[in-house]
Amino acid sequence: MADFSFVTNNRLKRQLDFLVEIDKMKNIFRRTVIINKSRRENDAEHSWHFAMYAMILEEYSPEHIDINKVIKIALVHDLVEIYAGDTFAYDSEGNKNKKQREIEAANNLFGSIGSEQGNYLRSLWEEFEEKETAESRFANVCDRLQPLIHNYFTDGHTWREGDVSSSQVLERMDIIRTASPELWKVVTEIVDKSIKRGILRP
Amino acid sequence: MADFSFVTNNRLKRQLDFLVEIDKMKNIFRRTVIINKSRRENDAEHSWHFAMYAMILEEYSPEHIDINKVIKIALVHDLVEIYAGDTFAYDSEGNKNKKQREIEAANNLFGSIGSEQGNYLRSLWEEFEEKETAESRFANVCDRLQPLIHNYFTDGHTWREGDVSSSQVLERMDIIRTASPELWKVVTEIVDKSIKRGILRP
Repeated sequence: MADFSFVTNNRLKRQLDFLVEIDKMKNIFRRTVIINKSRRENDAEHSWHFAMYAMILEEYSPEHIDINKVIKIALVHDLVEIYAGDTFAYDSEGNKNKKQREIEAANNLFGSIGSEQGNYLRSLWEEFEEKETAESRFANVCDRLQPLIHNYFTDGHTWREGDVSSSQVLERMDIIRTASPELWKVVTEIVDKSIKRGILRP
Repeated sequence: MADFSFVTNNRLKRQLDFLVEIDKMKNIFRRTVIINKSRRENDAEHSWHFAMYAMILEEYSPEHIDINKVIKIALVHDLVEIYAGDTFAYDSEGNKNKKQREIEAANNLFGSIGSEQGNYLRSLWEEFEEKETAESRFANVCDRLQPLIHNYFTDGHTWREGDVSSSQVLERMDIIRTASPELWKVVTEIVDKSIKRGILRP
């Protein structure tokens, strides 16, 4: 069995263990499918795509943002799902204890890498969750827009599977309304067209 | 068929088209397998993991680096493979025309998003390839270290499949020797242990 027991620098050993542990993100599957519809998307892929959305769409934040922080938030925002699992956005039952499950997961995962670096990763995740900074608001814009676009390009895959209505989608997307008015126009157009195409319940 | 023809802002339309197009990264499979050995890793997952390596291991660059640039390089360094495909690092035949195939792919992909943003993405990719800046050297360190660690944890999967020798691996890893002496110690230990375990040809 391979391990890093030969690494005498304890800090580096914990960092390498962490980098191996987070490989599990590649096995946490979301409800969303990839655009060719062949399979569900996993958390590692989603985090990369979300970071690309941030990098490409930065100019649509009316508030000044530190794009580098948004990208770092994208990279780490779903790490807690390694232990807490993915909770479907429209699953009201699963969302009831989501917060508690994720806090325990954060203690476990960010605790493993050691104090200052673990605290920094945790602070990025908390900032994303709290939506109190311009960076975290724009991060939430990208995190929501990406699966919306996937649903639009995959005949409403997740919406139909979860029997989701357009008002539920608009509620889920609501942060985009104020955090990016230009992208909000895209959201409402996609919702309108999806209803017309019969892939989203009115 | 879904598309963004309703987006009247032509710049935004091209950006959204690009973000949908790069979803194909999730279907470009590398030789490396994920650590639970269940399947090959794809380019989107690898790019995310590489960015995490950079973020966590930044302190092992003796040269000062702008970590935000390294992360951006990680996110875009394999985009050309959407059109050029993944070339196995130890495939000397495939590597002969790799450069030409990738330049054509870059013209195609980065051209699609429009001038200044496409040029910026292209410049990050070129910086990575040229290895002339501290950021690109450290990016190459992370890009090489990640699959080495995957091979070590998956019984030398790719090495055995490609009948790769330890001297080929050390040659491939050579940039780490000078760009991160602390991580180079990890590389040589992994190679030694892999030879002893019989998962890498001496």
